[in-house]
Amino acid sequence: MPHVDIREVSLRDGLQIEKPIPLAAKLELLAAVAATGVREVEATAFVSPSKVPSMADAAELAAQLHNYPDIEFSALVASAGGAKRAIAAGFRAIEYVVAADDAFSKANVGRTSAQAVEQIEDIVAIAHDSTTGSEVLVEVIVATAWDSPFEGPTPPQRVLDIAAAARDQGVDRFSIADTVGTTTPGRVTSLIAQLRPVIGDMPLGGHFHNTRGCGLASAYAAVTAGVTRLDSSVGGLGGCPFAPGATGNIATEDLVYLLTDSGFEVDVDLQAAIAAADVAKSVVGHDLPSALLRAGDRIRG
Amino acid sequence: MPHVDIREVSLRDGLQIEKPIPLAAKLELLAAVAATGVREVEATAFVSPSKVPSMADAAELAAQLHNYPDIEFSALVASAGGAKRAIAAGFRAIEYVVAADDAFSKANVGRTSAQAVEQIEDIVAIAHDSTTGSEVLVEVIVATAWDSPFEGPTPPQRVLDIAAAARDQGVDRFSIADTVGTTTPGRVTSLIAQLRPVIGDMPLGGHFHNTRGCGLASAYAAVTAGVTRLDSSVGGLGGCPFAPGATGNIATEDLVYLLTDSGFEVDVDLQAAIAAADVAKSVVGHDLPSALLRAGDRIRG
Repeated sequence: MPHVDIREVSLRDGLQIEKPIPLAAKLELLAAVAATGVREVEATAFVSPSKVPSMADAAELAAQLHNYPDIEFSALVASAGGAKRAIAAGFRAIEYVVAADDAFSKANVGRTSAQAVEQIEDIVAIAHDSTTGSEVLVEVIVATAWDSPFEGPTPPQRVLDIAAAARDQGVDRFSIADTVGTTTPGRVTSLIAQLRPVIGDMPLGGHFHNTRGCGLASAYAAVTAGVTRLDSSVGGLGGCPFAPGATGNIATEDLVYLLTDSGFEVDVDLQAAIAAADVAKSVVGHDLPSALLRAGDRIRG
Repeated sequence: MPHVDIREVSLRDGLQIEKPIPLAAKLELLAAVAATGVREVEATAFVSPSKVPSMADAAELAAQLHNYPDIEFSALVASAGGAKRAIAAGFRAIEYVVAADDAFSKANVGRTSAQAVEQIEDIVAIAHDSTTGSEVLVEVIVATAWDSPFEGPTPPQRVLDIAAAARDQGVDRFSIADTVGTTTPGRVTSLIAQLRPVIGDMPLGGHFHNTRGCGLASAYAAVTAGVTRLDSSVGGLGGCPFAPGATGNIATEDLVYLLTDSGFEVDVDLQAAIAAADVAKSVVGHDLPSALLRAGDRIRG
């Protein structure tokens, strides 16, 4: 059976928009997530604590991750400085986000998309540093890969140009993110088909939100088009400014259900993911959009 | 662009599980549904009023449908008697449901699956009656086509056998329904591939519920595998006994968004479908699971 790598993003993308929760609550969620068997966890972000207060404890959280030696933890960074801090905190994998449109990029990091692309070189140099022997994995994630909330549909060529720059700079992994939750399977399939000749055999990931109900459909289209890595969060944690609690990242347990029932192999155990979603709901203190959290697996249904 | 026929089922499958609402409220919903441009509407069911009190006004509703001459209205029937009543009430299209497993079939209509298949001949004879000149369309819908709530996974051969019987009896259309909302794209694609040689060029439809979040993904898999007809209900109306209001049929507006954004053509207008979902929410008096009803189209998002 074809294998799909699931990266659990509840601790970063899931919690980013939430009111900051105590480190102890994050560790409770992490323990539940680790119990699912997932092999990759996006743990935190090294970004401005004033802009993203929920990630202000990045270094403290990092100091606890040695308890899970079988998991590859990654941290999101927005600059070379963030990359240095993440690596100093012990991360062996970092994600650098480049928005495909200028308006979102400026709102997000104060740089145009082209200026954000220029930073890739420095970040890779820090991560792949032969003088220090550093071999930290660098992933470039394209935000607003299909649509921008400010500029509308993203011309695919912009994504292809960022991919070419990432490839030329020696980036290890590449991902495309539907930041606003508007894409659909047809456009997912089309963009991946255009990307593959550009990125060659670089591992390709997809990051989908379920804001318009199409997240799982897009994720499935992505894996059938050759994506081998998908982000998700237990419970579908990950808010949406205009509909709190109603939408978010695709839910890990829903994704696991869909993929395994469709004949794909994943590392994540379904019942443990449902249990972790329950923990996520408890630590944030509100309902989550996951379908399986309501309906249960077929065994219960 | 490939065309997909959407059949609006909110008035029947959507309302079936709800507390009976007045005929006037149904007509209000119908007017909103008709304004979407949809060409096919499942209007009601001619079944036992004691078992399904929400459909007890089938004949009264039927008497109002002449106001929408551009819409093909269909009625669900569970027996030859129901077929006669539906045709007498003026319907030019009827749907006959056959469950693929005995336990569900007995619970639903008091017959085994094989006994239900035997009724197809009589129903077709009534609908296609050369002595009266009747040329009413007959569709056979296979319920529990992938899973039964009582018997677990449905062996595909059962669905193929029902399809062969339907074909041999001169049925006009054939559909497969995920009654419990458990199937996923991989199994949808697989069953359709097995069905096509059996049904030849008979129009093939799909009916999906979003109970486990996979309904739209399954619907998309169905159209890419050659299904040209899909059922949906505005707002995602259509309850689920164990999670009221949380799940239902795939929502028409979500389906329209997904299909048109992915390059398919449909008759239904997206904004009108969102407006009809608002009407549906109002007539049943509770929230509905539609994603677009919360998040809005990209224009608003």
